Amino acid sequence: MKTAIIAIGDELLIGQVVDTNSGSIARMIDPAGWSIEWVKVIHDDADAIMQAVDEAFAVADVVLTTRGLGPTKDDITKLTLCKYFGGELRHNPDVLENIKEIFQRRGIQLNALTEAQALVPTSCRVIQNRVGTAPIMWFERNDGKVLVSMPGVPFETLQMFQAEVFPQLLKKFHSNEHIAHRCIIVEGLTESKVAMLLDEWEDALPDFIHLAYLPKPGIIRLRLDGHHPDNNLLQSTLDKLHAQLCQRFADNLLADADLTPEEALLLRLRDKKFTLATAESCTGGNIAHRITAIAGCSDCYYGSIVSYANDVKINILGVKKESIEAQGVVSEEVVAQMAEGARKAIGTDCAIATSGIAGPSGATPNKPVGTVCIAIATPERTIASTYHFPGTRDRVIDRASTTALTLLAMALK
Amino acid sequence: MKTAIIAIGDELLIGQVVDTNSGSIARMIDPAGWSIEWVKVIHDDADAIMQAVDEAFAVADVVLTTRGLGPTKDDITKLTLCKYFGGELRHNPDVLENIKEIFQRRGIQLNALTEAQALVPTSCRVIQNRVGTAPIMWFERNDGKVLVSMPGVPFETLQMFQAEVFPQLLKKFHSNEHIAHRCIIVEGLTESKVAMLLDEWEDALPDFIHLAYLPKPGIIRLRLDGHHPDNNLLQSTLDKLHAQLCQRFADNLLADADLTPEEALLLRLRDKKFTLATAESCTGGNIAHRITAIAGCSDCYYGSIVSYANDVKINILGVKKESIEAQGVVSEEVVAQMAEGARKAIGTDCAIATSGIAGPSGATPNKPVGTVCIAIATPERTIASTYHFPGTRDRVIDRASTTALTLLAMALK
Repeated sequence: MKTAIIAIGDELLIGQVVDTNSGSIARMIDPAGWSIEWVKVIHDDADAIMQAVDEAFAVADVVLTTRGLGPTKDDITKLTLCKYFGGELRHNPDVLENIKEIFQRRGIQLNALTEAQALVPTSCRVIQNRVGTAPIMWFERNDGKVLVSMPGVPFETLQMFQAEVFPQLLKKFHSNEHIAHRCIIVEGLTESKVAMLLDEWEDALPDFIHLAYLPKPGIIRLRLDGHHPDNNLLQSTLDKLHAQLCQRFADNLLADADLTPEEALLLRLRDKKFTLATAESCTGGNIAHRITAIAGCSDCYYGSIVSYANDVKINILGVKKESIEAQGVVSEEVVAQMAEGARKAIGTDCAIATSGIAGPSGATPNKPVGTVCIAIATPERTIASTYHFPGTRDRVIDRASTTALTLLAMALK
Repeated sequence: MKTAIIAIGDELLIGQVVDTNSGSIARMIDPAGWSIEWVKVIHDDADAIMQAVDEAFAVADVVLTTRGLGPTKDDITKLTLCKYFGGELRHNPDVLENIKEIFQRRGIQLNALTEAQALVPTSCRVIQNRVGTAPIMWFERNDGKVLVSMPGVPFETLQMFQAEVFPQLLKKFHSNEHIAHRCIIVEGLTESKVAMLLDEWEDALPDFIHLAYLPKPGIIRLRLDGHHPDNNLLQSTLDKLHAQLCQRFADNLLADADLTPEEALLLRLRDKKFTLATAESCTGGNIAHRITAIAGCSDCYYGSIVSYANDVKINILGVKKESIEAQGVVSEEVVAQMAEGARKAIGTDCAIATSGIAGPSGATPNKPVGTVCIAIATPERTIASTYHFPGTRDRVIDRASTTALTLLAMALK
């Protein structure tokens, strides 16, 4: 089934908020064979909304709008949709009841503005928003096409889309085309090198399978996308091609599924019953954050020492003062001591340590911005190496984190 | 000047990559009074590209396309633009030279696929891409409207847009309307409460000023947007209104500019010449990551102990085993000891500590998922409190981090 998404809000177009809802919705509808034709981000403006809805219905059976439903004055979506689909705004007692319940639960007083959220067009059917106050509105055209207007807070939108909106849409529409994907993650090769290696193989792919290259800093995701009415044929073809890809990139295979480096690392740690600690200087806690974002990581991840100040490196990680003075804090000697110190201080089998110059300041003649030393320690050995990552501070931090996680994951293969 | 952005790529529409380029471009062009009419995210498909370009030129003077320019086969943007603007693809020796240089610098072998990147339409003017291999293409219509096609890797796109593309666009177009913004950050109030307080004030705003509510988990950004040909009038009006907002929300004012909680906190630490350490359990390094993402933070931020395992809390932070046994690890007693332990172990004036249940597992009858204890310690006192944050794991982590940073920032006011 074809959908189009309209994301409404000046805040999106002046770059103060990023639209992550559309991607999340895409990932939810994809396994059911539904696709997004396009996403259009527009201003809080009646004409822009009207025009986008027209354009959306021209290509899609289902139109989803997000944002533009809060209690404040900059929200005009509801009024415009009421004008588009006809009818008038009327107080909906169920919506008001829901708002009252939510406010009571949060211990907040109801006010006139919030009560106005209970106004809904008579031309829509309301889907109760169980996690927020803005009502979700389902509009249906005579030709059966549907528009669902949802609030913008990602947490609300996604919970309600998954729990209520999408199940109701699936009930209404049926699709006979199956869509499926397979993914592998390759490290240590450039995109063009990978493409060269796959040139002939890619040309021989059946016409219902497409190969996408999705480079991310430090890794390349290769994704096989397929669609076919015969799901058995689709799945077996994808399985066969996926196995071929895994074999072809065996030496550089970080993962045989769409995993992040931290997910791949956790799998291998568990596989070997190893525990992990980190000691982070230039990555400043980002490695710990990426690992602990994964639920259940505490079985093998014990913690991190973010040693931004040298005293922390010396006092808690046991780095030798002489090493810092002789080699500098950004050196393989120091970062190796950090990794070993983290293993000891936190009491784990393995450790990752980083020390570098994320920039924009801090560079020395021998160590330009982007110089990062990374050490990985396992029960058998400690290896330290030096990298030079291009780009801005956040990019250096991100790239150093990815590289460090990938290094240990590959070492544990 | 009006622009429209077309982001090209299946990966965006199946939710594997989020388009952050458009927001970054918006923030760059905004101070010059340029605006984005809409952003449309479309498939790697010739018809979709052609149609989007038509739609874009209907509303904008400048059309920017991003992505869809890599060396691999899933990239058809260049071919389609060549068809749209006429001419043919021809090898461009300068582009090839640039590719060779970049590959040499990175120590990578040139291959046939990469060489194909040197093919460009004869109908465009090439802007050399100094940080990547895909050429940037400037197309101009007879009526003077311009389309610039840029690669998709955020780092490349933004560097080149700032350094080359936007300066050239500014040279070509002139705008006589000034655009400016003022922002404040309010904490501890709901959006509707803020709106109620501002109801009459907002109605009295001049017609060239608009107030936008931008709630983020835990805080609300209030932004005054104005546009006027007379820049002096615009700036003085905004300054006056901004001062009124600051005064009205004095008790809940986290910042009088568009600052993140961590930026506001660093300013106040510096103001008082205080240093900071963190001890993170449930936030898992996210607070440290958010602080160290700010360049120059090392003058007052010394480091963090991410104590995911209880032994780390006991051995490094000095939390009493009896406290953990009696009160549980998620308790105000333990989190207060963590904050004080971090101050001592890392040797700072202030500390922030978190301990909670981010979920989805780990809940107990008395402590549901989302229960988070937060402590802040200053040279004068340590305060611990308990919060209940709704939502998924990442939301609980994010909200707990924001609250902890905000708490200390407000305490240092």
